[in-house]
Amino acid sequence: MAVYTEVSDAELETFLADYDIGQAESFKGIAEGVENTNYVLATTGGRGRGQYMVTLYEKRVDPKDLPFFLGLMDHLAERGINCPRPIHGRDGRALRTLAGKPAAITSFLQGMWPRRMTVQHCAPVGEALAALHLAGRDFAIRRPNALSVSGWRPLFGGARDHIDKALAHELGSELDFFDAHWPKDLPAGVIHADMFNDNVFFLNERLSGIIDFYFACNDFLAYDVAICLNAWCFEPDNAFNATKARALLQGYDKVRKLDDAERQALPTLARGSALRFMLTRLYDWVHTPAGALVKRKDPNEYLAKLRFHRGVTSLSDYGL
Amino acid sequence: MAVYTEVSDAELETFLADYDIGQAESFKGIAEGVENTNYVLATTGGRGRGQYMVTLYEKRVDPKDLPFFLGLMDHLAERGINCPRPIHGRDGRALRTLAGKPAAITSFLQGMWPRRMTVQHCAPVGEALAALHLAGRDFAIRRPNALSVSGWRPLFGGARDHIDKALAHELGSELDFFDAHWPKDLPAGVIHADMFNDNVFFLNERLSGIIDFYFACNDFLAYDVAICLNAWCFEPDNAFNATKARALLQGYDKVRKLDDAERQALPTLARGSALRFMLTRLYDWVHTPAGALVKRKDPNEYLAKLRFHRGVTSLSDYGL
Repeated sequence: MAVYTEVSDAELETFLADYDIGQAESFKGIAEGVENTNYVLATTGGRGRGQYMVTLYEKRVDPKDLPFFLGLMDHLAERGINCPRPIHGRDGRALRTLAGKPAAITSFLQGMWPRRMTVQHCAPVGEALAALHLAGRDFAIRRPNALSVSGWRPLFGGARDHIDKALAHELGSELDFFDAHWPKDLPAGVIHADMFNDNVFFLNERLSGIIDFYFACNDFLAYDVAICLNAWCFEPDNAFNATKARALLQGYDKVRKLDDAERQALPTLARGSALRFMLTRLYDWVHTPAGALVKRKDPNEYLAKLRFHRGVTSLSDYGL
Repeated sequence: MAVYTEVSDAELETFLADYDIGQAESFKGIAEGVENTNYVLATTGGRGRGQYMVTLYEKRVDPKDLPFFLGLMDHLAERGINCPRPIHGRDGRALRTLAGKPAAITSFLQGMWPRRMTVQHCAPVGEALAALHLAGRDFAIRRPNALSVSGWRPLFGGARDHIDKALAHELGSELDFFDAHWPKDLPAGVIHADMFNDNVFFLNERLSGIIDFYFACNDFLAYDVAICLNAWCFEPDNAFNATKARALLQGYDKVRKLDDAERQALPTLARGSALRFMLTRLYDWVHTPAGALVKRKDPNEYLAKLRFHRGVTSLSDYGL
């Protein structure tokens, strides 16, 4: 996407005056991220080469969720997770206002997200996800997952008139299935909920950081594993790669062992996760004009993933 | 704009292997620039904090012009102009290929372009423009200005059917006027030709650099001054600010004195420059779908400027 919100010189100067990180030496809007406006900021002072990220929260982020998101990043960073660390102003606050929008400065993470996902990425992703789950255990603020089962039907309702009947029928049946069979009692906690390849940085073939906590929420921990199975373990032609899945699940188990109930629930969780991304993509597809600033993602990719998980008969399909 | 060309990990690694600047530590597409794809690159080695810009040249830049643009930046940087300095590979070449596109790495310039232009910016802009003209005097490669008088009629031809008759008539008369009255013999040399506020960086209220040489060409030096008068000396309501113009022209004169013929030609050059930007904006307006990735600029702003210069009766209107 392009920058949504322009920041004037005077606004930036006033904003930085509340911090102890010096003055701006450069400030460039970056083209990544769909939900918010992001700038790379270099300053004359502070830690980490004087490099920071400035995020302006746009309308798709609910301001009342920001204490959860920023508090979570503080909490995780203190526990050794490599994630953007909110920079606090002199008054202790991390959440401020810039150009009329809620805004925060965070540390700048080295590394690059892998454009091509390989099996080598999967074990580190599993390990990092488990470490995040452990580090999040004692985080005090709670945020229910608005995009879990009860959120799917309204999304479907907004898209069903724009898709063909057979597909609408298939998705309707899926919703019925999840109403009846979604797990009720699995270990829960803070999940990232969006750990796609563009949110995970690598440096010298090691995982160097996790970004974008703006979907994080409380839900089943194994649901986060299911999201990663979908995000990291399919090939570009939508074929499932069991070798990648095994690496990811073994990586996870090394740090936090999935219990039997979680393992048995994986096919349902992965199928549900596929439906969730299918539905949000479908919703965006229907509601975003062609040629708009936001690049639309293909819902059919997640339809193919959903159908794969629906056909899973044993955990050996996941390489276990 | 958003990033036009995605670069894969493997492509970036192969690209950097031909340079002596270390390996990538971060690589972020930036949202500025309309013509090309730009990334901020941080590496483990090299000068300047290991910060660079990587530019992929997209279809609006003619590859055969790239030796001029890159050679010019080398030439100017060697003569003390603060501009992006092309980084040469181990084989001495600055122009290479990345993701199938012509591409180059340049140094990263500190500073920010002023979102709000004030009179304080104008003298430094004039001085820097004159210094650029002097530094460019002995640059060996030549590139005629494709967007001078002879290039305006085809642009007009591509837009005339989309504008109202009175405006088409007015612009047609302007073209006739310039065919008859465009200056023929003024001091010429390398001009920047696009020194708008987003191409000039300031740091601590001092001009810290000039970027974006992708319209640079050979033309009358005073035409570049006229472009700056239009870019820096009007208020947001299109009112001309003679105080700003005086500061800009005095700044220029301090470094390179405009001769009498150049001064007399200024109203015609400024009027022509206004028509040039009016026409390219009009062309883009007509040919860019609404809601496309590229933000369209308002042609009417330059129509107002053109009409102002048409009414100029003496150089005192420019504060001289």
